[in-house]
Amino acid sequence: MEMILPIFFIFTLLFSYSQASVVDFCVADFTLPNGPAGYSCKNPADVTVDDFVHYGLEAPGNTSNIIKAAVTPAFAAQFPGVNGLGISSARLDLEVRGVVPMHTHLDGSEILHITRETIRAGFIASDDKVYYKTLNKGNIMVFPQGLLHFQVNSGEIPAIAFVSFSSPSPGLQILDFALFGNDLLSELVEKTTFLSDA
Amino acid sequence: MEMILPIFFIFTLLFSYSQASVVDFCVADFTLPNGPAGYSCKNPADVTVDDFVHYGLEAPGNTSNIIKAAVTPAFAAQFPGVNGLGISSARLDLEVRGVVPMHTHLDGSEILHITRETIRAGFIASDDKVYYKTLNKGNIMVFPQGLLHFQVNSGEIPAIAFVSFSSPSPGLQILDFALFGNDLLSELVEKTTFLSDA
Amino acid sequence: MEMILPIFFIFTLLFSYSQASVVDFCVADFTLPNGPAGYSCKNPADVTVDDFVHYGLEAPGNTSNIIKAAVTPAFAAQFPGVNGLGISSARLDLEVRGVVPMHTHLDGSEILHITRETIRAGFIASDDKVYYKTLNKGNIMVFPQGLLHFQVNSGEIPAIAFVSFSSPSPGLQILDFALFGNDLLSELVEKTTFLSDA
Amino acid sequence: MEMILPIFFIFTLLFSYSQASVVDFCVADFTLPNGPAGYSCKNPADVTVDDFVHYGLEAPGNTSNIIKAAVTPAFAAQFPGVNGLGISSARLDLEVRGVVPMHTHLDGSEILHITRETIRAGFIASDDKVYYKTLNKGNIMVFPQGLLHFQVNSGEIPAIAFVSFSSPSPGLQILDFALFGNDLLSELVEKTTFLSDA
Amino acid sequence: MEMILPIFFIFTLLFSYSQASVVDFCVADFTLPNGPAGYSCKNPADVTVDDFVHYGLEAPGNTSNIIKAAVTPAFAAQFPGVNGLGISSARLDLEVRGVVPMHTHLDGSEILHITRETIRAGFIASDDKVYYKTLNKGNIMVFPQGLLHFQVNSGEIPAIAFVSFSSPSPGLQILDFALFGNDLLSELVEKTTFLSDA
Amino acid sequence: MEMILPIFFIFTLLFSYSQASVVDFCVADFTLPNGPAGYSCKNPADVTVDDFVHYGLEAPGNTSNIIKAAVTPAFAAQFPGVNGLGISSARLDLEVRGVVPMHTHLDGSEILHITRETIRAGFIASDDKVYYKTLNKGNIMVFPQGLLHFQVNSGEIPAIAFVSFSSPSPGLQILDFALFGNDLLSELVEKTTFLSDA
Repeated sequence: MEMILPIFFIFTLLFSYSQASVVDFCVADFTLPNGPAGYSCKNPADVTVDDFVHYGLEAPGNTSNIIKAAVTPAFAAQFPGVNGLGISSARLDLEVRGVVPMHTHLDGSEILHITRETIRAGFIASDDKVYYKTLNKGNIMVFPQGLLHFQVNSGEIPAIAFVSFSSPSPGLQILDFALFGNDLLSELVEKTTFLSDA
Repeated sequence: MEMILPIFFIFTLLFSYSQASVVDFCVADFTLPNGPAGYSCKNPADVTVDDFVHYGLEAPGNTSNIIKAAVTPAFAAQFPGVNGLGISSARLDLEVRGVVPMHTHLDGSEILHITRETIRAGFIASDDKVYYKTLNKGNIMVFPQGLLHFQVNSGEIPAIAFVSFSSPSPGLQILDFALFGNDLLSELVEKTTFLSDA
Repeated sequence: MEMILPIFFIFTLLFSYSQASVVDFCVADFTLPNGPAGYSCKNPADVTVDDFVHYGLEAPGNTSNIIKAAVTPAFAAQFPGVNGLGISSARLDLEVRGVVPMHTHLDGSEILHITRETIRAGFIASDDKVYYKTLNKGNIMVFPQGLLHFQVNSGEIPAIAFVSFSSPSPGLQILDFALFGNDLLSELVEKTTFLSDA
Repeated sequence: MEMILPIFFIFTLLFSYSQASVVDFCVADFTLPNGPAGYSCKNPADVTVDDFVHYGLEAPGNTSNIIKAAVTPAFAAQFPGVNGLGISSARLDLEVRGVVPMHTHLDGSEILHITRETIRAGFIASDDKVYYKTLNKGNIMVFPQGLLHFQVNSGEIPAIAFVSFSSPSPGLQILDFALFGNDLLSELVEKTTFLSDA
Repeated sequence: MEMILPIFFIFTLLFSYSQASVVDFCVADFTLPNGPAGYSCKNPADVTVDDFVHYGLEAPGNTSNIIKAAVTPAFAAQFPGVNGLGISSARLDLEVRGVVPMHTHLDGSEILHITRETIRAGFIASDDKVYYKTLNKGNIMVFPQGLLHFQVNSGEIPAIAFVSFSSPSPGLQILDFALFGNDLLSELVEKTTFLSDA
Repeated sequence: MEMILPIFFIFTLLFSYSQASVVDFCVADFTLPNGPAGYSCKNPADVTVDDFVHYGLEAPGNTSNIIKAAVTPAFAAQFPGVNGLGISSARLDLEVRGVVPMHTHLDGSEILHITRETIRAGFIASDDKVYYKTLNKGNIMVFPQGLLHFQVNSGEIPAIAFVSFSSPSPGLQILDFALFGNDLLSELVEKTTFLSDA
C-alpha cells in the first residue's frame, strides 16, 4: 500500500480550498442563530462521527399515559447530524390498545416500518376518503405530506414501529392536544370544531 | 416609432429557439397526464390571456350551510394559469357567526386579507400555543405551513376575505369533515380521537 | 371539559422535545445575520401573534408622484412573520391615469386581485407576445415568474388592488428607474437600451 | 353520531372542486410518460390503500453472492405510493462478513437503522476524513447526501438493517461495479482510477 | 482482470430493479407532453451519449444585426440532456461595439466567462445601484437571479464569452424587444414606460 | 435626460423599504455562522462589484502531480458572490496524458466546456452503462447529478476546460483519494472495495 502517501500528498496540490470549507454536511450548532433552512452549522473541526449516530431510539418510550403510546423523535433538535439533510426518524411504541391519535406533520411525508406485532394505520385524503390497513411485522406504509393519519395497536402484545420523514424537522400536531390542550376560550373551540365538550 | 420594426426583425436572428419553446409558463391541460410537479402544459399556441385571469372569486360562495361559510378556491384545478407557479388564491365568505372550522392545507403557507367586516382568526403551534387575533378590514395575517388554523366572523354583518397560498394546489383538510364525514368505522374514530360521538 | 387537563398533562410525557425547539415558523429577527434562505429566526419565546399580523396595507400609499401610483410592500423586511414561508403581499394604489410601470420581480410569481375600480394589466412573454386584459373588481390575474408586467388604472376613479407573491422577498425592479434612475454613465445607458435620452 | 350525515352533506356545498382533483398524492403510473419530478400520477379513482403499502421488505434478500449482502429497494419504481413524496426505503441483509461496498446515491441523504446484530458503517467526507462507527441494534446513523459510504457486518450472526432516503428514487452506484462491471475499455479504467487490474 | 465477470454477474442478484428504471437522468423527449418541471423523459433504452453532448456552441452566432451581437442558447429545448438538471449554457458573440442589451432571465442566475477580448458587463440591483466591470479573458462574473444585466464589447476586436445558468430553461427577455417589438398599443407602451417613441 | 432626476426622486416615495433590505443577493461573509442553505450574507453596504467578479480562473492550475491535472474551483468558498445562487464554476487543466480520475460531486450537475485541445470524458450510469465521448474545442457535455465521471486529455498538447455546476458548493470526491488517501484501516478498505493494495 505504498501508493497511499504520495497520492494523498498530491491531493493538496490538485484541489485545495482557500477556506476551511468542508461543506459536505451542516451538523446543527444549537448555540448559534437558526434560520428558515435549519440550524447553523457546527464548526467542521469539532464534528465527530457521534454527531451522525443517534442512540435515543433503542429504548422504548414511556407509554404509561392515557393513549398508551409514545413517540420518540430523532429530529434535528435531538439528532444534530440530520440538520439540513431532508430526513429524520422516530420510534413509535404502542401498548396493547395503544393509539397515536389523528395527527399531521408540518412538513414532509412519512414511511412507517413495523418491527413488532401488528398495527392498524391509515390516513384521510382531502376528499374525506380513508386509506387504512392492518400492517404486520416487516410491512411499510407511506403517509403523503400534510394528511391526517393515525396508528393503533391492533394486536395482542406491545407493538413497535420506526418512522422516517422527508424533513429534518417534521413537527407533529396531534389533533386532540391541539384542540383541547390549548388555551383557546372554550367557546371558540366549540365554534371552530362543532365539538361540544361533553 | 420607426425603430420598432427593424429591432423586431433582428430578434429572430439574434435569438431563435430551435423548438416551439415558450417555457415562460405552464398553463394546465387537464386532458394530459399530470405528475408530482403539477398538470402537463397546454400547447403554448393555444394559450390566451384568459388562462391567466380568473373570474370565479367575484360572487360570494353559498353560505347556506351549517357552518355559514364558504370557501371558493382558485387553485390550479380551477385556475389553470397558476399551474407550476407556486401560488394560488381563494375567496372566503362568512355569514354572521359563520366559521371556517379548524383545518390544515397539505402544502403551503397562507396569507389572509380581510376585505369586509371583522374576522377572528388564529392558528395552533405544535407546542399547543394558540396565536389568534381579531382582524379588521385591511389587516393581513399569515398562517405558517402545516399548522391547524381557523376563521370566525366576529362581527355584525357578513364578512369577506381573500386568501393566498404558496402552492398552486394547497388542498384543504377540515377537521370535522375528516373525522366524522368519512367511512371509518365508528370505533376507530373514537379510538384515534378520544371523541365520543355523543 | 374535564378531559382537557389529563390529556394536556400526558402530552409532555408522550412527546417532549429535548431542545427549546418550536420549529413551526421562523419569524425574522433583523438584528441577527441573514442567509440565502432568509433572515434568522426570532427566539420563539419572544414571538407573539402580532408577528403574524400586518397592519401596513390598510391605508393608501402616497400617490402624489409622477406615476400617480404607490406600491406598499408587506415583504419579509416589513412583515417578519412571512420570513421563510414562500409568500408575501403588497397593496397597490393607482390614481386616475396612475401607472405601475413595466417591472419584474427577482423571485416568485404574482397574483393581482382588484378590489376597487378597473385596472388594465398585462405581461410580456419572452417571445414578445403580450397578454393583457382589463380587469374589474373581484377579478384576479396571475403574472408568471420573471416576466415584465404592468398595471394601469383604466377607470374613472382611483383603483386599489392587492397582490400576493410566491416569495417572502420578491424584490421589485422597475424598468425606468433601473434604466434612468441609476448612476450608469449616460453613454452606457444608450448603448445597452437603444434609447436616446431625448 | 347524528351530526355526521348533515355535516357530510354540506361539505359538497362548502368546498367543491370543479375538476376530479384529488391532488393529495401522485401514485406512480408506469404506463404513462415520466418527467424530471417523477412518474405521472395514476388516476385517483384507481388508487387503493395497497398503493401506499409495500410488502417487499419482509423477507431477506438473496445474499448468496460474493459480497454476502443484499439490498432490497422500496423506491418509487417498486413502491408507487412514494412517487413525488421525497422519501423511500430499503432493506439491507448482511451475512457474517457480508459487505455493502463503497457506494453513493444519486440523490438524497440516508438514515440507517440496525434491527439485528452489529454493523460497522461509515462515510468519507470530501476532505478524505472517514467517519465510521460500530452500530448495535437500535442505533441509527445518517449519511449526508453525495458522500461515499459502506456497511460491513461486524458481528457473529447475519445482520439486518433498514434504510430511509430523502428521495423517492435515490439510485445506487456501487464503486466496484461501476468501475469493473462496465464496458469501458480496460485502458481507460486504469487511467481514470490508477488501479491496475492485477 | 478476472474478477470483473463474476462481480458483474452477482450484481443482478444483489440489486435488481423491478422496472426498467434507470432514473439517473431525464433526457427531454419533445414528442411527449411537458410539465412544470420540464420535458418528459426519453425512453432510457433510446438514450445515447450524444444526448449529453452539444455541438451548437462551436461556431459564432450571426452578429449581422443592429446590436452586433448573438446569443446562441444550449437550453433544454436545444440540448435535451440538461432537461431537469438545473443547468444550461449559451455562447455570446459580440462584434466590436456589439451589445447584449439590458435583459433578464425568467429563472436562474448566470455566470459569464470571457474567452476572447474584453467585455464590459454589469447588473442593476433593485435599489438602482449599478455593479459593472470591464472583464478580460479568463475573468468570470456572476449575475444574481432576476436582475437586469447587460454585456458590451469594450475592446478592439470581436469578443466571445460563454455563460452558464442555474436553470435548464432560463428564458431571456430583452428590454427593448419586449417593449418595442411587441403588439401592445403604442399608447400603452408610453404609459407604462414613460418613454416617448420619438 | 432631464427626466432622470425627478423620476429618481419619486422612487423613494413610490416604494421605500422599511429596512436596509437589499435582498437581491447574498454575498458570503465567512466571518459569520453558515447554515444548510449557505454562508451568511455580507452587509449589503459593504458589497462591491468585485464580490461578483472572480479572477482565479485565468491562470493554469499546478499540474506537476501524478495525475498531471489540476482543478481550480470558483465555488462559494472562493467566489463569495455565488453564495445562495445555485451556480458555480471551475477551471480544469490537463497535461498530455493528464487525468481527472473518477469522481462525484456532492450536489449538482455539471457542464464541461472544452476550450483547448481534446478531452475524452464520460460518466457511468447506475445500471453500469458508460456514456463517453471524445470532445473537441467548443463542445460541451453534461454530467447528470450524482454519477461517477472522469476526464482524460486525449490529445497531443495540454488541454483546458471550464466547468459549471448547478450548486454554489458542489464539493468533489475523487475515488482514489477517498479510498486510499484516508485513514481507514487497510483491512476495511479491502473489505469494502474488493481491491487489494498490491
